[in-house]
Amino acid sequence: MTPGKSADTARPARRRLSVDRRREELMAAALELFSTRDAEDVSIDDVASAAGASRALVYHYFGGKQELYVAALKSAAEQLESRLRRPQEGGTPIEELASGLRRYFDFVEEHAAGFAALLRGGPANRTGEVGEIVDGVRQRLFRLVQKQMGVPEPSPVLRMTLRSWIATVETAGLDWLEHRDIERAALERMLVDHMVALLGVAAAYDDNVTGLLERLV
Amino acid sequence: MTPGKSADTARPARRRLSVDRRREELMAAALELFSTRDAEDVSIDDVASAAGASRALVYHYFGGKQELYVAALKSAAEQLESRLRRPQEGGTPIEELASGLRRYFDFVEEHAAGFAALLRGGPANRTGEVGEIVDGVRQRLFRLVQKQMGVPEPSPVLRMTLRSWIATVETAGLDWLEHRDIERAALERMLVDHMVALLGVAAAYDDNVTGLLERLV
Repeated sequence: MTPGKSADTARPARRRLSVDRRREELMAAALELFSTRDAEDVSIDDVASAAGASRALVYHYFGGKQELYVAALKSAAEQLESRLRRPQEGGTPIEELASGLRRYFDFVEEHAAGFAALLRGGPANRTGEVGEIVDGVRQRLFRLVQKQMGVPEPSPVLRMTLRSWIATVETAGLDWLEHRDIERAALERMLVDHMVALLGVAAAYDDNVTGLLERLV
Repeated sequence: MTPGKSADTARPARRRLSVDRRREELMAAALELFSTRDAEDVSIDDVASAAGASRALVYHYFGGKQELYVAALKSAAEQLESRLRRPQEGGTPIEELASGLRRYFDFVEEHAAGFAALLRGGPANRTGEVGEIVDGVRQRLFRLVQKQMGVPEPSPVLRMTLRSWIATVETAGLDWLEHRDIERAALERMLVDHMVALLGVAAAYDDNVTGLLERLV
């Protein structure tokens, strides 16, 4: 499957494309395995065999299992974030939140293995680097929601409310992948309603949130 | 600090007590370190030095770092669960939920390191066994809330709502340990209000929840 040396020299652009695609195939196979099994139970041989590649090729591209795992998670995190970063369609903050959730669940649905590997704490071998990737996604999501809501410096009550809401979205995403017994569009609407309901609770504990809530709905 | 051999033989009961206490001290020191640092950055020497013990003693009691880590997390999980299992004080389901939350946050406050090590995904080296401990706590918490609510077989919408609420409680616990800028009693009341608000949202998507909500509040 690896292109021969002479072809490499003759067609560097084509070889580059092929290397990228091969790396992506290996990472996709790895995410699939890491999303359902413990990192310690997945071997380089498993990944190679799932991707129809040789063990040597996996080592060649990634160096080792941990490096492959980190590269695959990073790639999943970048794909999720690039979807969320797309220019907003405009509308009220609640409409923007709804459209952000739609793009979030597009990722959940299309990259189920990546999402599960990224967030399912259990099977993941969370060393420092992996923890940073996962926390990084969460922090950037927090800042995105903060921006959509127009609250550059949230009060303690609001900070906790937004973090809690992000946790409900992550949990709902994992639950949906596991069961798929709720229609996706209904789930997305329910999560927007969660945000409004949680802000309603927060307003009872923090007057500043009352103003935000009036602005939103 | 280790009792001499002759003393062991003469006072087996006292030695037993001392061994248990020593193990607990080592586990407490380990949880403290694992709650703020990556597992890979904590050495047996760090744990030994934090507990004022020798490296050999840590190996003697636990065999190695991974075994110590697993033992410490298990002990934290058991302490949390034994608090939550205590007989209910009676009252409405919402009052029971409030009293359960109080005991949950008693644990969060008194065993901050254990709680953080248990739930903070980042620094933990989550191999299969560790994932099982963490997921186990979460599942038993789910069943406890199910029981308090009197819903042996929750619908998809209710299942997702209860899981989401547990995620908000975990998130609030970690956020509170990190910032401590909300009064604990207010936070607990807010989380009870979250449950009622989330069930209110769920009722709009699932008629069965309406009956439950009327029964609760």
